[in-house]
Amino acid sequence: MSCKGFRFAGVAAGVKKKAGALDLGIIACDPAASAAAIFTSNRVKAAPVVVSKAALAKSGGRVSAVVVNSGNANACTGPRGTADARRMVSATAAALGVPAGEVVVSSTGVIGVPLPIERIEDGIARARPRAGAFAAFAQAILTTDRAAKTARRTAKLAGGRATIIGCTKGAGMIAPNMATTLTFVCTDAGIAPTALHDLLRAAADDTFNAMTVDGDTSTNDMILVLASGAGPAVKRADRAAFAGALHAVLDDLAHQLMAGGEGVHHVVEIRVCGARTVRAARQVARAIANSPLVKTAIAGRDPNWGRFLSAAGNAGVPLVPGRLALWLGDVPIARDGRAADTPDVEAEARRVMAAPRYTVTLDLGAGRETARYLACDLSHEYVTINADYRT
Amino acid sequence: MSCKGFRFAGVAAGVKKKAGALDLGIIACDPAASAAAIFTSNRVKAAPVVVSKAALAKSGGRVSAVVVNSGNANACTGPRGTADARRMVSATAAALGVPAGEVVVSSTGVIGVPLPIERIEDGIARARPRAGAFAAFAQAILTTDRAAKTARRTAKLAGGRATIIGCTKGAGMIAPNMATTLTFVCTDAGIAPTALHDLLRAAADDTFNAMTVDGDTSTNDMILVLASGAGPAVKRADRAAFAGALHAVLDDLAHQLMAGGEGVHHVVEIRVCGARTVRAARQVARAIANSPLVKTAIAGRDPNWGRFLSAAGNAGVPLVPGRLALWLGDVPIARDGRAADTPDVEAEARRVMAAPRYTVTLDLGAGRETARYLACDLSHEYVTINADYRT
Repeated sequence: MSCKGFRFAGVAAGVKKKAGALDLGIIACDPAASAAAIFTSNRVKAAPVVVSKAALAKSGGRVSAVVVNSGNANACTGPRGTADARRMVSATAAALGVPAGEVVVSSTGVIGVPLPIERIEDGIARARPRAGAFAAFAQAILTTDRAAKTARRTAKLAGGRATIIGCTKGAGMIAPNMATTLTFVCTDAGIAPTALHDLLRAAADDTFNAMTVDGDTSTNDMILVLASGAGPAVKRADRAAFAGALHAVLDDLAHQLMAGGEGVHHVVEIRVCGARTVRAARQVARAIANSPLVKTAIAGRDPNWGRFLSAAGNAGVPLVPGRLALWLGDVPIARDGRAADTPDVEAEARRVMAAPRYTVTLDLGAGRETARYLACDLSHEYVTINADYRT
Repeated sequence: MSCKGFRFAGVAAGVKKKAGALDLGIIACDPAASAAAIFTSNRVKAAPVVVSKAALAKSGGRVSAVVVNSGNANACTGPRGTADARRMVSATAAALGVPAGEVVVSSTGVIGVPLPIERIEDGIARARPRAGAFAAFAQAILTTDRAAKTARRTAKLAGGRATIIGCTKGAGMIAPNMATTLTFVCTDAGIAPTALHDLLRAAADDTFNAMTVDGDTSTNDMILVLASGAGPAVKRADRAAFAGALHAVLDDLAHQLMAGGEGVHHVVEIRVCGARTVRAARQVARAIANSPLVKTAIAGRDPNWGRFLSAAGNAGVPLVPGRLALWLGDVPIARDGRAADTPDVEAEARRVMAAPRYTVTLDLGAGRETARYLACDLSHEYVTINADYRT
């Protein structure tokens, strides 16, 4: 996998305990790329998030390099953490000969422990970015993930075919202090930072911002999209095609992220329809997806539909219980707010819930708006992994 | 345990599968008591909640009887559910010779299944309320609870000593469709319904409304306080004493509820101080208490303090990470948003977290307001109980 205008590197810098494990990734963009990013909404932001956010604002979305380390989040590390994040930026700028103001820095791993900054600086100096090394970069950003997660789509634009490649990490949100989701997307399309940001926001709202493993955000979450402009430009008429491909890459990565989490056996798309507003639909979908009672029902393959309705009632959205209808997959299980008269409903519903991926649809009967949310099961492995995380 | 002005009954009506299990409770108040209630905030309200709320509004907080069944929640049961709740009211009014408008009805148990209303009506007719049968009543409201939960306090008022007794159920919020928390409190004090409601609201906000097992509310939750007036009146100067005793009864019941839940090994009081507003303090405390990553850390006795800070950052409250300080019990584990220099901090913190009950204190360093929230661990048993609930 490669993308015109970008070079990549994955290096073993010695941040992770395991000898030889890739834990430092670099993206070099020459010339500078247009960039758009979404950062964690958590109020406790890690040092690299604070530093990168400021850099992007100052450069107006102009990025020449990205440097990422795994194995240590550089979060809750005080003023030293900020200084260390800046040292990563300076070292990368020096190594690649680009302005420090055009470098984005990112970290993921344990919280509250200072970075081994000398080893990281040494790794940065040793990195030799190449066009074909995207796989090494995708590997270097992982923490507890079992495998690298990458996706690729193309978009047919007026000026030719544009390529979009991306990778993500985050077995996470499952393995907490390594809970961070980092996502990096590169495209050779030409597009201004503001337009890119609008498209990223729309695509993320329906993918990465519409999924939940445990309802928590991390201190380090970040999605970064870089557009080199080495390929065709995104003209006004190309917007939809490009947006579709960008959405597809993020959707693919989001599904891989959910399914790849340790302890996850079922990825369930919660679809809410018949809402008065998109906001209300999303709120209800999120309440269902975040409910531990729903998640344990998914784990136990138990078509306990009252839990879904009760979780919807918890969303803080006005709803008329007597109008609610629920489907597990294609099986109608509740109608008019009570049990539906579906023959063999229990067996049918259990068949649906045995699948690794299925949908649950709730009709609020109040309007025409819809939203979706990706949910997963809350399993014994989740508890084991998270209770015994550091021991 | 008894309280002047009240008679109680617990009957085996045959709602629960187990033969002879008490599943119907009655409180008779003669003459009518002052009443105040708090009902579930869930938008999907069970039929008895809707019926009782309307009755209390209409009677202005005048109650002559309470009828409760366990084993079936009469929730998501459509128009038939409403009719059944009204039949329970009528049967109770007829049996005790009181106005139907002064009867409160309540149910807890499985969702989505119609009540066996004839058996319940038969049970109501057979019930013989007695002053000394509070224990039978407390038993009859249980579902998956391992034992009855009762509390008693007295308050020294100008006119003499008032008694407050109460019981609660809800292994619940843990065993979902039986997730309901029902709480009934009786006092012989004399107090008007509006004044009683103010005191109940204040006491509940700091106890039942400040605890979480899984963040979900049920379709049937309810707290009812009845004041018979057979004892001393609560005069203006008695308010604080009476409020203190009422708070103590609810706090005692809330702690029993948390500790008694299956799968709960640790009840943790999350104290947030240094907040700008009480609302902000409560929001942060709730975010910490509801975080699955915090709850699994509690289960694993893992002093992974970054999770507490990260959960606080998720609360939607502005905070300055560099000002945060965290204590596990009396052990300072984070200061100025980073690791505190406490000797043997890991061992000391693990010692604290081994206890069945301890406190976690987070200072936001932003103001003078405080709040607390009761949290518990998320354990393997929770997943087992809830994944396999109906099988």
